[in-house]
Amino acid sequence: MPQTHRADQQSAFDVATAVDRGEGGVLTAVLDPGWGVGGGVLNGGYLLAVAARAAVLDSPHPHPVALSANYLRAPVAGPAQLTVTPGPAGRTLASAAIVLADGGGPAVTVQATTATLGAEPADVAVPVPAATPVEQCPSIAEHAHLAPAGVSVPGLSERVETRIDPLTAGWALGRPGGEPVIRAWMRFADGRQPDPLALVTFADALPPTSWALGRFGWAPTVQLQVLVRAVPAPGWCLVEARAGEIAGGWLDEDYRIWDSTGRLVAQSRQLARAPR
Amino acid sequence: MPQTHRADQQSAFDVATAVDRGEGGVLTAVLDPGWGVGGGVLNGGYLLAVAARAAVLDSPHPHPVALSANYLRAPVAGPAQLTVTPGPAGRTLASAAIVLADGGGPAVTVQATTATLGAEPADVAVPVPAATPVEQCPSIAEHAHLAPAGVSVPGLSERVETRIDPLTAGWALGRPGGEPVIRAWMRFADGRQPDPLALVTFADALPPTSWALGRFGWAPTVQLQVLVRAVPAPGWCLVEARAGEIAGGWLDEDYRIWDSTGRLVAQSRQLARAPR
Repeated sequence: MPQTHRADQQSAFDVATAVDRGEGGVLTAVLDPGWGVGGGVLNGGYLLAVAARAAVLDSPHPHPVALSANYLRAPVAGPAQLTVTPGPAGRTLASAAIVLADGGGPAVTVQATTATLGAEPADVAVPVPAATPVEQCPSIAEHAHLAPAGVSVPGLSERVETRIDPLTAGWALGRPGGEPVIRAWMRFADGRQPDPLALVTFADALPPTSWALGRFGWAPTVQLQVLVRAVPAPGWCLVEARAGEIAGGWLDEDYRIWDSTGRLVAQSRQLARAPR
Repeated sequence: MPQTHRADQQSAFDVATAVDRGEGGVLTAVLDPGWGVGGGVLNGGYLLAVAARAAVLDSPHPHPVALSANYLRAPVAGPAQLTVTPGPAGRTLASAAIVLADGGGPAVTVQATTATLGAEPADVAVPVPAATPVEQCPSIAEHAHLAPAGVSVPGLSERVETRIDPLTAGWALGRPGGEPVIRAWMRFADGRQPDPLALVTFADALPPTSWALGRFGWAPTVQLQVLVRAVPAPGWCLVEARAGEIAGGWLDEDYRIWDSTGRLVAQSRQLARAPR
């Protein structure tokens, strides 16, 4: 059962993505090893949420709407520094460039557009796919014993409760499928409700879709773009990741995220190195 | 008929996207008003190709594979300056940040990953859609008289021969459809063959997909990501653009581009402001 997140205590996500302004205006964060994907590597969506928090700090707008990140190298957990270079800011949107660096230098560079999102109904909508009801979807963290050989459940899946749709979970049971698609329900394990920053993390929080084909290698992200389209309603988000082309050692992955009302609230696309 | 592009003369595209190194290593380009979309506004894909040329100039790798651009404001045609900040470079890929500025300051900021692409067959492929054969598709430039009221054929369509699939051209004939999809065959009008740089321009060269719904306003791009997946074969490219969600004044657009062999060679996604 998820712990209850009380309004008077900060959620694990808010603590792990906190950005503080120190002496001389320097922005710092403490990268939390709990948001890793294994092998000491922090999740790309987690790192992007830290950068997004820095982006909105001095923006006239509260929400990240378009983020694109280049992952230069994997930063280590611990103290990190953020440098924000503001671009033009207007009534509709504002731009900024963010560099996240650890002791070894720049690790992630981000271009951010911030704006003020609502939850208006869509003129043209992306329909929510037919998914297995959440009660019938096994949690990754609770089914660690089912993980394929060589795969361990990462810290990320302890913090983001991830309930995989059995229709896309054959790979976890020794029956990889023909389609590079993984779908899951997601929410924070401590009960914190989703918001645009949470969606930035959810948009890279599934196992690589190449796993659905039985290729269990790591698929390091090269570039990730996240678009946040609306403020999500409270409750579970449905997250679907799909690879398009796998070729020449490269893999593209699309995520689409719907909130509990069935509204598309975020999309992402990444280029990654393809596992062998 | 397209003019013949002879090997001993530079193509219009290569001239218009040329980047020169001047005194003190300063990179300059001359933005060509011929690559506009109307109203003095230059095409976003054209501007991105200029930045991509700067990105590969000092990279150990010849091809742009992942580009993301923030369009801060529309630069004017004429002299422009490019600033390239190189990131890590390795055997597989290299990173760089590029700022394209005109006399008014920074206009487009770009994050680039460069690599060395091949044309290996895909392990998992994105099948080419069923499109009307190119001979049966009307050229935008040759059918200017059919343009909807208030819409004029832009310079871009004179340089990139664009033959719209009649199945997605109802909007041009007063019969807007229900689906925000536009598909066309593309090649350079002067016969220059496609390459990864050309794909960067093709990936933003169609009218806004909201036009397919009969909304003929301008849809300014906020952020554009282009992924180049393989070196294209000579001949026509098939380019399909599709909007996902139109909501709250925002619009996302996905492009997919296949070469003449039916191989997916590029993808793009952009967030734009939606026309009313």
